[in-house]
Amino acid sequence: MNSKIKDIINNIESVDYSVIEKTQYILDNLTKPKDSLGDLEEICKKVAAITHNPFPKVSKKFIFVLAGDHGIAEENVSAYPQEVTSQMVLNFINAKAAINVFAKHIGGILFIVDVGVKGDFSNISSDVFINKKINYGTNNFLKNPAMSKEEAEKAILCGIEIIEEVLSNYYKEENETFLIAIGDMGIANTTVASAITALITGVEVEKVVGRGTGVDEVRFKNKINAVKKVLQKYDFDLNDVIDIISKIGGYEIAAMVGIILACARYKLPVILDGFIVTSAALLASCLSCKVREYLFAGHISKEPGHKVQLEFLGLKPILDLNMGLGEATGACLAMSIIELSCKIIHEMATFETAGVSKSL
Amino acid sequence: MNSKIKDIINNIESVDYSVIEKTQYILDNLTKPKDSLGDLEEICKKVAAITHNPFPKVSKKFIFVLAGDHGIAEENVSAYPQEVTSQMVLNFINAKAAINVFAKHIGGILFIVDVGVKGDFSNISSDVFINKKINYGTNNFLKNPAMSKEEAEKAILCGIEIIEEVLSNYYKEENETFLIAIGDMGIANTTVASAITALITGVEVEKVVGRGTGVDEVRFKNKINAVKKVLQKYDFDLNDVIDIISKIGGYEIAAMVGIILACARYKLPVILDGFIVTSAALLASCLSCKVREYLFAGHISKEPGHKVQLEFLGLKPILDLNMGLGEATGACLAMSIIELSCKIIHEMATFETAGVSKSL
Repeated sequence: MNSKIKDIINNIESVDYSVIEKTQYILDNLTKPKDSLGDLEEICKKVAAITHNPFPKVSKKFIFVLAGDHGIAEENVSAYPQEVTSQMVLNFINAKAAINVFAKHIGGILFIVDVGVKGDFSNISSDVFINKKINYGTNNFLKNPAMSKEEAEKAILCGIEIIEEVLSNYYKEENETFLIAIGDMGIANTTVASAITALITGVEVEKVVGRGTGVDEVRFKNKINAVKKVLQKYDFDLNDVIDIISKIGGYEIAAMVGIILACARYKLPVILDGFIVTSAALLASCLSCKVREYLFAGHISKEPGHKVQLEFLGLKPILDLNMGLGEATGACLAMSIIELSCKIIHEMATFETAGVSKSL
Repeated sequence: MNSKIKDIINNIESVDYSVIEKTQYILDNLTKPKDSLGDLEEICKKVAAITHNPFPKVSKKFIFVLAGDHGIAEENVSAYPQEVTSQMVLNFINAKAAINVFAKHIGGILFIVDVGVKGDFSNISSDVFINKKINYGTNNFLKNPAMSKEEAEKAILCGIEIIEEVLSNYYKEENETFLIAIGDMGIANTTVASAITALITGVEVEKVVGRGTGVDEVRFKNKINAVKKVLQKYDFDLNDVIDIISKIGGYEIAAMVGIILACARYKLPVILDGFIVTSAALLASCLSCKVREYLFAGHISKEPGHKVQLEFLGLKPILDLNMGLGEATGACLAMSIIELSCKIIHEMATFETAGVSKSL
């Protein structure tokens, strides 16, 4: 494996559970009944553990939408034509897609990353666009492996670079943290994520394949067949994630794996969106069992395989709004709640400072 | 019944379901797969129906925390002493309580209303404080009715005034709406809300009484006994809500009834918080069956009776974060999601304007 990727993985530490007691003490002295903020208190403690800081503070919120195309699209598995990936990248850059509205609403900093879109954006000059293009879409995995192993490593490195660039380009105080949300764009990527999910969780294909953007019965069957065939066609070794990615794809999913690994390496909370992003989390958790301690499930999407993934990773989703759009929309909304969970310990009075009586 | 209250109730119209088709058409042309924003699309359509506007827009978000004390507190039913109600009112005014942090986080305009707190705030001069005091706490309903019928009507009128004052003090364009979130503060108010809930839903007392701010076994039994006794002590007529309020209380719950009625009368979406506020919604829905069309359940709290209430009203909670603080904290977070649901139809591109291909 590439030495940089190996280095990142080897330097992932376990989160610091020892700070949780201090954070709990702080929470219990705020002017509210004990545990009355429920999941927000659990979230705050998790951020504390991830950042090794009992008094965590969020200074910036980043959202990365990773885009890539998939050769399997030619098997008629999606309700939308492949050019929609490119069209949506332009829509993101023009600030007119759902995630643009969501990101603005929560005060997040949004970036669109081309990792493997079948379209040329080399002329695009935009503050929100990051060009990390490796190729113009993957191969149809039913004919050939989605990409080479070199490309798979390169795509993971892209994700690592994205986080390292954020950390070098944006200043943060020692006691502050950034939150990182990840989202996806790529026609046919639910087929790819289904294959990854069935492979890693061992759950049967029919239980992880869903309707994606709303496919009809014919395309739904095509999806199931494509996933079954790819799992039969190749030999897979769960200890060789690079090989899995090279066979199934995709470029953007590999980059998400890199982002997740780098967040864990640099002690940043990372907020997963839906089915695609969580398939990347499955891959990343095969590379290091400590990864899952850094993950938040932003929401549970209506894609049935997402529940399978979250149960496998042991993650409780923050939101359940029956969404299934991708683009980081679910992660983005949850990120605002995670930020709030940290604000309460900085902005609320304690029983003592407010002169409020404690419980009897 | 007081003629003003009667007038408000008689002027509550049904929401305009006919606009939903137009809103659906708008939603379906945005650059996203059909229905992919799930509950957000349902929420947007509900705001459209409430405001009779297929293209709803939220201009301001108001949060009212209504405070009152309850004579039943002397029966040892709460984990906190009664003076905490007054202390928390000061904490709200000093902007140091949970709801202050939440309201600031979502950009909401917060007001604290004293309707019946056992404490004197007549010297308080603060932009966020509204003095509508009717009395210094209710009577212990096991000894005497909580208040007179005149006071019950006066408290409902307070709530109506609050909404009428907002509508006269804050400008909004014809095509804009305000969102109204309601929260509570009052030691022992879960006992009062439990009695209201058992009475109106007919569900047995043990299933609606919960741990509130975290009572021990002794106080939990005291709560159950208090609720059972009050339901036996008086004769109740579900057609006489004023009488129910006068017997059980409380001042702040009556004011919430007024706010809810006025929101329905003036076509404003109203976002319920937890168990206390939803008990007011039960009362309001006895006064007009159309009221429930204007209600959003901000979240489902960990108080077990809240689920009973929401099922009775047929409301699906927006959030489920295991919270149980009150103060409008759950309603406040949900209000931000409701606002976002309306932003999408104004800020997203359509397939046509963005040049994105539609589904095959």
